[in-house]
Amino acid sequence: MKIEVVAVTENAEEIIENAGRTCYQSEAKEGHKVGTLIKALVKSGHHSVLEHAYATVRYNGVSRAMTHQLVRHRLMAISQQSQRYVNEAQFDYVVPDAIKEMGETYIADFDEHMMKIQGMYNYWKSVGLKNEDARFVLPNACTSEIVVSANFREWRHIFDVRCDKHAQWEIRRVMLETLHALNVFAPSVFEDLMIKFTGSQPITH
Amino acid sequence: MKIEVVAVTENAEEIIENAGRTCYQSEAKEGHKVGTLIKALVKSGHHSVLEHAYATVRYNGVSRAMTHQLVRHRLMAISQQSQRYVNEAQFDYVVPDAIKEMGETYIADFDEHMMKIQGMYNYWKSVGLKNEDARFVLPNACTSEIVVSANFREWRHIFDVRCDKHAQWEIRRVMLETLHALNVFAPSVFEDLMIKFTGSQPITH
Amino acid sequence: MKIEVVAVTENAEEIIENAGRTCYQSEAKEGHKVGTLIKALVKSGHHSVLEHAYATVRYNGVSRAMTHQLVRHRLMAISQQSQRYVNEAQFDYVVPDAIKEMGETYIADFDEHMMKIQGMYNYWKSVGLKNEDARFVLPNACTSEIVVSANFREWRHIFDVRCDKHAQWEIRRVMLETLHALNVFAPSVFEDLMIKFTGSQPITH
Amino acid sequence: MKIEVVAVTENAEEIIENAGRTCYQSEAKEGHKVGTLIKALVKSGHHSVLEHAYATVRYNGVSRAMTHQLVRHRLMAISQQSQRYVNEAQFDYVVPDAIKEMGETYIADFDEHMMKIQGMYNYWKSVGLKNEDARFVLPNACTSEIVVSANFREWRHIFDVRCDKHAQWEIRRVMLETLHALNVFAPSVFEDLMIKFTGSQPITH
Repeated sequence: MKIEVVAVTENAEEIIENAGRTCYQSEAKEGHKVGTLIKALVKSGHHSVLEHAYATVRYNGVSRAMTHQLVRHRLMAISQQSQRYVNEAQFDYVVPDAIKEMGETYIADFDEHMMKIQGMYNYWKSVGLKNEDARFVLPNACTSEIVVSANFREWRHIFDVRCDKHAQWEIRRVMLETLHALNVFAPSVFEDLMIKFTGSQPITH
Repeated sequence: MKIEVVAVTENAEEIIENAGRTCYQSEAKEGHKVGTLIKALVKSGHHSVLEHAYATVRYNGVSRAMTHQLVRHRLMAISQQSQRYVNEAQFDYVVPDAIKEMGETYIADFDEHMMKIQGMYNYWKSVGLKNEDARFVLPNACTSEIVVSANFREWRHIFDVRCDKHAQWEIRRVMLETLHALNVFAPSVFEDLMIKFTGSQPITH
Repeated sequence: MKIEVVAVTENAEEIIENAGRTCYQSEAKEGHKVGTLIKALVKSGHHSVLEHAYATVRYNGVSRAMTHQLVRHRLMAISQQSQRYVNEAQFDYVVPDAIKEMGETYIADFDEHMMKIQGMYNYWKSVGLKNEDARFVLPNACTSEIVVSANFREWRHIFDVRCDKHAQWEIRRVMLETLHALNVFAPSVFEDLMIKFTGSQPITH
Repeated sequence: MKIEVVAVTENAEEIIENAGRTCYQSEAKEGHKVGTLIKALVKSGHHSVLEHAYATVRYNGVSRAMTHQLVRHRLMAISQQSQRYVNEAQFDYVVPDAIKEMGETYIADFDEHMMKIQGMYNYWKSVGLKNEDARFVLPNACTSEIVVSANFREWRHIFDVRCDKHAQWEIRRVMLETLHALNVFAPSVFEDLMIKFTGSQPITH
């Protein structure tokens, strides 16, 4: 699995704070540290200003089991590799952690299952089916590439739901990694979630 | 595949027309036929009033290939059968039309593929995997149950995109059937789409 | 101010519970009391199922100060009396509570101000301005009629934000009244908010 | 009135095109001109990829009549100067074009009306009313500051509706100016609307 942060609003924290000040027609005091206001707004639940900053993230090698969950979030933009148009003659797949932990023999079993399914797909292609129909045999393990854009408020919501220990392991791992990645760009926006989900100490900056 | 209209706003057309009249503080003329105003609004592109009426539809026996497309629509409420929680020890599946048209032998091949995959799933369950991990072998053909609620404007948008001949055959068939089903409740809202996609004559009512 | 519940999803609680059961493919136990499952879901934060039920409410005689706040909510359908199209030759207005509490003399002052502004509006109409331009002198106190539709999850969010004691008095009063009105139709959905904001005891039903 | 583009996604056109290519797992051909694919997607109605780029715009000196319309758009983030918190002891206002065209005398009349209303506001403040109640006398002409963020698809929708000749003159002027401003950053996204609404020739780039 590979995560790439494609784009983040430049000077995100400054833009958020300036938007927030519009409501009260206030100004930053001299010597004001960017981020202080955001942390106060996040704490008090005034999250609408976080919607003025955005991040676009590209995920590679995630399973279709995971993407079917991910695309359920609705305040985001999504572009995903289409199994209708793309030939999956050599599809890649995600091996569940639980199988990896069971050891080599079980991993080999899973690989064999995937090879058998690959054979089925190839069969249906060879007898003339279109990609969109041949894919009916493809498994949830099959990997996908997906580009997701959302504002910071929505990313926070996604992290809240998907970094939780009740979340499915794959989407949880992917979202913990995304949280780390976005935190670099706007620590005052994501710091409390970093502490909540990764136990790391508050960042002094 | 089975479609059930679970709920539709009662007197939907009247509610929409009354909401529309609020903007202009106008009143229905004596002898006004409910629906006339709606048809004029639809034609002129003033679709926001259609958002005051809703329909909830339950789909049974649709493939996960289809639901992964369906849940990409974002202005709707969705509750879907979870493969994390539900045991798929006897999963049902959708056979693509293209295979059915190829005849008995090919259908038998597809059934055999599905049985093999069922065997894989059962194997992983038997060695102790949880549903959420065993499902990694399950195919896109695997059926799902899903309940969808949306307002009439969004339903119109879905029909526009998914009843089109470029849409994937399964979601297209399901949405054409849904269009027929909702048209019964609010013909003035959906009539133009009925004509566009099914070629049926305008309904006189 | 007048509130009218125009439409509510029939059997809302049953529809919500059935949608919720779809996810787990579970069934209601014999003797199950409708609403029990909803209360558990609300408590545990699984609110997406509440989106399957809707309510449409018509507000009369609310100020434009209030509606400018109300229309900031985004997961709703809105049809509002238009000052571009409707002649406000005899506009009505909301007198702030704070003025009413100051007594008759101040109320008379406010009435006089409103009359003066009415005069300004009439002047601009008499010299040939269109409604949409004459309205530039109209005050925030000017009343409006507005029809709002939203799903139960969004109504809950609105109540959470607008019934709070930090909310502006007019929208707070209007939303407390709306909460009471919708609670009649789906007490298991709104009961906790009733207790939170009105102090009333849990409803036994 | 003043428009300031606060932020636009960097390399917006490239990001949009790359997201679009994810669906088909295709690659740009050598010598490909960025923007060509976007123009084809826009023309064919595949607008979802435009949601991967965003723009934040700050408006100063627009009327509350205009902002009450603007905030009706729902796929955007908004931070607006609050009349609850900000003292309007010296409010500024927008003079409708129609009055300006009628000449000096009428403009003077309008100024006088605004001064009278300013006096009313000051009176209510002097007898102890809070901003949030004194503002009930403030007119629609009163200016506001507002920061708006939306993705390019939504901006296109706003331009489509608000640059139209049936739109109210103020929001139309503001949005035509915004269209010009955003077109600089992503001409392949907005070019067809520029031609439609401003009659300018296609941009060769």
